[in-house]
Amino acid sequence: MLHGREPGEKRLVYAFEEGNKDMRGLLGGKGANLAEMTLIGLPVPPGFTISTEACREYLSNGKKFPEGLENALEEYLRGLEEKTNRVFGNRKHPLLVSVRSGAPVSMPGMMDTVLNLGLNSDTVEGLAEETADPRFAWDCYRRFVQMFGNVVLGIDHEKFEAILDRKKAASKAASDQELKAEELKSLVAEYLEFIKQETGKDFPQDPKEQILLAVRAVFDSWNNHRAIVYRKIHRIPDDLGTAVNVQVMVFGNMGEDSGTGVLFTRNPSTGEPGIYGEYLPNAQGEDVVAGIRTPIPISAMKETLPHCYEELVRISGLLENHYRDMQDIEFTIEKSKVYVLQTRTGKRSARAAVKIAVDMAKEGLIGKEEAILRVEPEQIVNLLHKGVDPDARLKAIAVGLPASPGAATGKAVFTADTAEVLGQRGEKVILVRPETTPDDMHGIVYAQGILTSRGGMTCHAAIVARGMGKPCVVGCDALKIDVDARRFSVDDRDGAGVLTFKEGDVISIDGLSGRVFAGEVPMVSPELTGEFQTLLEWCDETKSLGVRANADTPQDAALARSLGATGIGLCRTEHMFMAPERLDAVQEMILASDEAERRRALSVLLPMQRGDFEGILEAMDGLPVTIRLLDPPLHEFLPRVEDLMAEIDELRAVASSDENAKERIRKNEDLLRKATSLSEANPMLGFRGCRLGIVYPEIYEMQARAIFEATVALIKRGKTPRPEVMIPLVSIPKELEVLRERVSAVADKVMEETGVSFEYTIGTMIEVPRAALMADEVADFAEFFSFGTNDLTQTTFGFSRDDAEAKFLHHYIHNKIIRDNPFSTLDTDGVGKLIRTAVKLGRKAKPWLKIGICGEHGGDPASIAFCHEAGLDYVSCSPYRVPVARLAAAQAAIKARKDVTDMERAAASN
Amino acid sequence: MLHGREPGEKRLVYAFEEGNKDMRGLLGGKGANLAEMTLIGLPVPPGFTISTEACREYLSNGKKFPEGLENALEEYLRGLEEKTNRVFGNRKHPLLVSVRSGAPVSMPGMMDTVLNLGLNSDTVEGLAEETADPRFAWDCYRRFVQMFGNVVLGIDHEKFEAILDRKKAASKAASDQELKAEELKSLVAEYLEFIKQETGKDFPQDPKEQILLAVRAVFDSWNNHRAIVYRKIHRIPDDLGTAVNVQVMVFGNMGEDSGTGVLFTRNPSTGEPGIYGEYLPNAQGEDVVAGIRTPIPISAMKETLPHCYEELVRISGLLENHYRDMQDIEFTIEKSKVYVLQTRTGKRSARAAVKIAVDMAKEGLIGKEEAILRVEPEQIVNLLHKGVDPDARLKAIAVGLPASPGAATGKAVFTADTAEVLGQRGEKVILVRPETTPDDMHGIVYAQGILTSRGGMTCHAAIVARGMGKPCVVGCDALKIDVDARRFSVDDRDGAGVLTFKEGDVISIDGLSGRVFAGEVPMVSPELTGEFQTLLEWCDETKSLGVRANADTPQDAALARSLGATGIGLCRTEHMFMAPERLDAVQEMILASDEAERRRALSVLLPMQRGDFEGILEAMDGLPVTIRLLDPPLHEFLPRVEDLMAEIDELRAVASSDENAKERIRKNEDLLRKATSLSEANPMLGFRGCRLGIVYPEIYEMQARAIFEATVALIKRGKTPRPEVMIPLVSIPKELEVLRERVSAVADKVMEETGVSFEYTIGTMIEVPRAALMADEVADFAEFFSFGTNDLTQTTFGFSRDDAEAKFLHHYIHNKIIRDNPFSTLDTDGVGKLIRTAVKLGRKAKPWLKIGICGEHGGDPASIAFCHEAGLDYVSCSPYRVPVARLAAAQAAIKARKDVTDMERAAASN
Repeated sequence: MLHGREPGEKRLVYAFEEGNKDMRGLLGGKGANLAEMTLIGLPVPPGFTISTEACREYLSNGKKFPEGLENALEEYLRGLEEKTNRVFGNRKHPLLVSVRSGAPVSMPGMMDTVLNLGLNSDTVEGLAEETADPRFAWDCYRRFVQMFGNVVLGIDHEKFEAILDRKKAASKAASDQELKAEELKSLVAEYLEFIKQETGKDFPQDPKEQILLAVRAVFDSWNNHRAIVYRKIHRIPDDLGTAVNVQVMVFGNMGEDSGTGVLFTRNPSTGEPGIYGEYLPNAQGEDVVAGIRTPIPISAMKETLPHCYEELVRISGLLENHYRDMQDIEFTIEKSKVYVLQTRTGKRSARAAVKIAVDMAKEGLIGKEEAILRVEPEQIVNLLHKGVDPDARLKAIAVGLPASPGAATGKAVFTADTAEVLGQRGEKVILVRPETTPDDMHGIVYAQGILTSRGGMTCHAAIVARGMGKPCVVGCDALKIDVDARRFSVDDRDGAGVLTFKEGDVISIDGLSGRVFAGEVPMVSPELTGEFQTLLEWCDETKSLGVRANADTPQDAALARSLGATGIGLCRTEHMFMAPERLDAVQEMILASDEAERRRALSVLLPMQRGDFEGILEAMDGLPVTIRLLDPPLHEFLPRVEDLMAEIDELRAVASSDENAKERIRKNEDLLRKATSLSEANPMLGFRGCRLGIVYPEIYEMQARAIFEATVALIKRGKTPRPEVMIPLVSIPKELEVLRERVSAVADKVMEETGVSFEYTIGTMIEVPRAALMADEVADFAEFFSFGTNDLTQTTFGFSRDDAEAKFLHHYIHNKIIRDNPFSTLDTDGVGKLIRTAVKLGRKAKPWLKIGICGEHGGDPASIAFCHEAGLDYVSCSPYRVPVARLAAAQAAIKARKDVTDMERAAASN
Repeated sequence: MLHGREPGEKRLVYAFEEGNKDMRGLLGGKGANLAEMTLIGLPVPPGFTISTEACREYLSNGKKFPEGLENALEEYLRGLEEKTNRVFGNRKHPLLVSVRSGAPVSMPGMMDTVLNLGLNSDTVEGLAEETADPRFAWDCYRRFVQMFGNVVLGIDHEKFEAILDRKKAASKAASDQELKAEELKSLVAEYLEFIKQETGKDFPQDPKEQILLAVRAVFDSWNNHRAIVYRKIHRIPDDLGTAVNVQVMVFGNMGEDSGTGVLFTRNPSTGEPGIYGEYLPNAQGEDVVAGIRTPIPISAMKETLPHCYEELVRISGLLENHYRDMQDIEFTIEKSKVYVLQTRTGKRSARAAVKIAVDMAKEGLIGKEEAILRVEPEQIVNLLHKGVDPDARLKAIAVGLPASPGAATGKAVFTADTAEVLGQRGEKVILVRPETTPDDMHGIVYAQGILTSRGGMTCHAAIVARGMGKPCVVGCDALKIDVDARRFSVDDRDGAGVLTFKEGDVISIDGLSGRVFAGEVPMVSPELTGEFQTLLEWCDETKSLGVRANADTPQDAALARSLGATGIGLCRTEHMFMAPERLDAVQEMILASDEAERRRALSVLLPMQRGDFEGILEAMDGLPVTIRLLDPPLHEFLPRVEDLMAEIDELRAVASSDENAKERIRKNEDLLRKATSLSEANPMLGFRGCRLGIVYPEIYEMQARAIFEATVALIKRGKTPRPEVMIPLVSIPKELEVLRERVSAVADKVMEETGVSFEYTIGTMIEVPRAALMADEVADFAEFFSFGTNDLTQTTFGFSRDDAEAKFLHHYIHNKIIRDNPFSTLDTDGVGKLIRTAVKLGRKAKPWLKIGICGEHGGDPASIAFCHEAGLDYVSCSPYRVPVARLAAAQAAIKARKDVTDMERAAASN
């Protein structure tokens, strides 16, 4: 009955040596960890854990300690006395312990630590005598009383600090260290008096009472307000309960051969092997946290305490081997003796994560698959862009939406024209606009980054910037931009007034976090280390999903290929239409009053498009390139109605004397009429995609011709182009049937005209629910499907992305109406159901149907895992996310195999 | 081998007495019909039919007559000779026949009739001698040559008419009738000469050659361009072929005891019993068609040819009894002998259809179910609205979209204010606007009808008008409306210039056809005859679907109830918000900067809403009323941004001297700021529906309170209110869970406050795909589902209704990309699949779940049939469509039972 229970019952108390790391549920995380370290023979100060079972009984039983708990506590304290040759509550060799909470799941908000428990007016004297250091003893007591008063008795920490400050002032002491033993003694007396005032009771001098109160306080803290909220948010069950760890005190503040510190088994920033950390000689843990003294690098210990350093290296190796991962270790040295108080898997930078995983696999510590699983896909985005130095302490002037990763610094400019002029001169500029339109493209090209006050993650600026791999922050609505006055202002975030930036002032943006800074900020450069390459090669050996890229230009295609893309999953053609030198022809095409006029304008565009496709197909020579025919509504290629009206007004003012102006008025009026007639209530659901191709056959015919003529040109040059023609926004199988016929007819014609035959495929995007629901019929006319999950998410939810993100989606996420933003992480419940339906129906009709995804979800690790499960052939994402996707695809394959193995194992064991 | 075939082969020729009405495939519709009439002993001139089999062989065999056809033709002609005692091609008693095409499916565009075949320069003399009427004989020959030349030889009809006109001029004859025998004889000579010139051949004098050429012409006409196009459009198989009917001529032009005419067995306009029709004495069929002489009512025959009249009454009764439906009969009288040439089911007006169906059922001719099936649901809409007199010959000045049925006449007015002023004075006005907004409500209320130049079937004007049962034409883009000048103009449709209408000019609109007229037009009033009531009662006995109405006011609810609605399926609450006297409070609510302000504004609205609900619940006392909480985006309650800007500009001009104006500027600026911040890229997918309810809980709480307080008030007055609270636009089950909790909490609170307990249910609309896909989880929080098929269609297709109808849907329908407009007739392939999924999942989770539909499809007969099949509990539609829905629901039930019976029968016979 040592542990307070009959055999077979769950025990109330476990000594560290009685547990192990698999007993987290019963011992809590910290308890299981201490047990495990004890088990493998590390120098852990002895102790025991009061189990979560005890806590659960306490809480469900009206806050009464379970029967037998007090006895068990006494028994186990007696065990500690035996191990340490000390006696709890005894003046001579008093046993001091720490009391800490430790839930099964990491839970901030639980009770803090109480150190030095067991001290009282009597034992403190014993400690002073034993150590011959009264100042040390009284300092320990002072700390204990303060912590106990705060943590167990619930008195505001600040009030103790106020008393301490008065004492320091009275003693003319600059810091706690300068208080002498006598001063500390009188401080303790003041504390005890103050506690009596506050609680109406004497401070408990009996160590047994102290420990019971502390245990009760830990149990009670399970149900404090902060803990309840935390559990609610993180969906942690309310009935887990917490364990309590009681451990013999060791003291890092017993002179220069003592100390306390933290180390990593490898460098957490670079991943280099060898222990890395810092420590504080002659100090207790709190002193490190308080930041009063500056710790020194652990390597210094080689000189000062070489044996301890060696012991730490030994322990570090032992723990890393045991846990098979880089560890973050807390230790204390008491008179040259090293104690380990805590170990956990160490947090690390992206760079370190990659290097450590690959190194460990090469060292044979883990397998390649485990190495792959060790790196967070999201993390490696940081390796691929210039970023703001994560170590720099910076204050952002505003925060917008992180629309395109990377950081940029430059002069703020407010028009595309200025951006172009300065950019051509080689100056670095950030284009700052309320929002951007196709008219701003010439400026965007020359800008280092883009910053807008309006728009969401799919606004023009965001899409263009991501496509170009340019840093971009959008929707930064704190900025008040006055384009005419060429300046923006923003309220100082400390409330100290308004900051104003005028054209030419240097600013910086961080597209990864959405932060905007005044002036220059320190940056770190992207690095593709050898280990990173190695890891990605392992991924390619492991994954079954193909990874393609979304790219619209030969430059992007080449970049994607260099980052490991094995094809283009989405080559949009509309950005080609938006290039400034083509916009005239595009607008003529739109303004055409009949088919003949439209064909004339299209014939101007044909050679340009052919050139585009030739470039991309050549960059991806031998790899498939999926080219989507024109998708956006035509009004996107026209200036905005408001702008046209304003310009007409301006021109009218000078028109009487200026023939040129009259001509421009006429042109603008044509544009205005057309823009008005093309305007739509809900453009996202309007006249776009294949609907354009059906009503104006000549547009898609021109594009098909450009693709096929480019194909022929490359074949003639000995290349192997692999074009795939993709028809967007199909909702009716007949749409695809009709357009497929027309595109095939163009291919036949080009073959006939040139005498060169070539391979190509025709497929469609599945981006509205109806196409997914009728995928069997759609598949009759498609060699491939590509899920356009952005639009599919919009239509399945009935969410307009920009509107939802601006108006209610944040509220939804904050209030847990929905778990994730479905535009970032694929909604597997709803949209996923449609995807599975489409895959099933599509493959039923055509088993060899190739199926991919080209929405932004194609670069999101969780969504990639779903794509793997759903049986897709490939994902496609922006070039810079290709490595992320390769890693995520490999992880998905490994996890799926594990799940299968687990299921087989379970089946075999039945 | 009489019929040209070995036993067992399909025959090439059938005498009329050898066929029957079930042989349409082989004999064509006309042939089968003639056979059937012969079979039941009617006086049909003898004849035979060359089967479609012969045509198919001819066509598939390079236009060669099947072996044996010519022989069979001769044999059957011999048969006719025997029956008539005449000889084909003989001068004495020559046999004359008609040759007509007759496909299995009615197919305009096939070859026309040739009459009097068998005449030549020889037999015409015989006919003249036999009848002692040379004029008659030459007139017959003249007609034959002309018809044969046109129809068989392919010479333009106009050219014969030109020759005829010259002859009339030369003879000073005002009409054909005045041409004498000799003149006709020389006319024939001219015709024959002309034919020789045109064809290079002599006109065939041999009757056998004539008949073979005529048969060949009929066969060939199967593949003429018009026929091919017609088959393509109507999806008629190309390989059916046509039959050819050869029939002995009878002559209505043999004096005053001869004649020809058409009769209906009952009055096709009123449905009254008794034969009804008209005839032309001494005439052949063509003369009726040509419209040269005016026919006289058939009742006149009672005096002139009483025996013939009695014979027609006898035949009429015989045919109606035989076909068990009202017949449309063609007859000819030759020297007092009545011949029947054709009978078919007679077309009839809606009123007649209802009366005839009910009368026949009462007479025992058909069963009640058959009576129900005899009336087209769509047709009876005409019985429920004042309409433009269908008999009036009117010229529309323009045609728009028929947004809300009914016709109206009134003075054109261009602002809601004017409409209100004149309307209050009792004048009838038509409100003419580019489009309407909530600000126009006070004018709409006083207008007889609404006419707009913009907008689609779901624009504000259309929805409001349908809700009010007010005639409305929208999107009439031919109108150029100048509101400031108070006039509109429209191009004259004959190209004769521009018509201009100023304020006060009388116009009329027809909301059933979309037509707009200048001035007043004759109208017909709706009639609910006794038979109509009877029919609908039979429907109610038969149908299993419930029929509810969409109604937002007590008046509409009462109307719906009087038309047979057994509940309200959709009571929208937004129109209540739009009433002018409330708009201020609504706008204050929207402008509120915090919850407290919002609650204050809502508290102003609460009593008004309570009054609304009390009225509707009382009107539907004892029946369920589904009330949808607020759905539209809030910006719909604000003035348009453009209007606000214009008004601010105007006010500024006077503001310096006018404090009042300054105040209004401030208010408008507030509104403008809010309207701008609320504006959305795609409002249909934006911040609306339950998303409002989630973010602003107080809005739905106010509405719930209003509903429940109204419920309590009615209970206290001894009534039985049955409120059903409907949450719109759910896409995430959690949305419904949260809102359900809040609404229930309000109900509990109201019960507690009033001490009155009441019943209510909470449910949701299924109107985005995700709700359908996750219907099992949604059903956990719902007592009912109601499919909002308008939005569900929009999101499933990715179509914005207004944009699609304006931009590409017409093109799609015209080019057969899609068969029906999915906003009129439910898309059973895509949207229907989601509905079936939702029904299945919903009922799996909650078997007693009540499921209805409240989109506009709820009033569409084809969609109602689908709802019946899909297992819905009820449909809901606009009040005026309730009778349509009752009829359609009954028909769906009958057809479904028949299908089951047929299947059982098929199963039993296997």
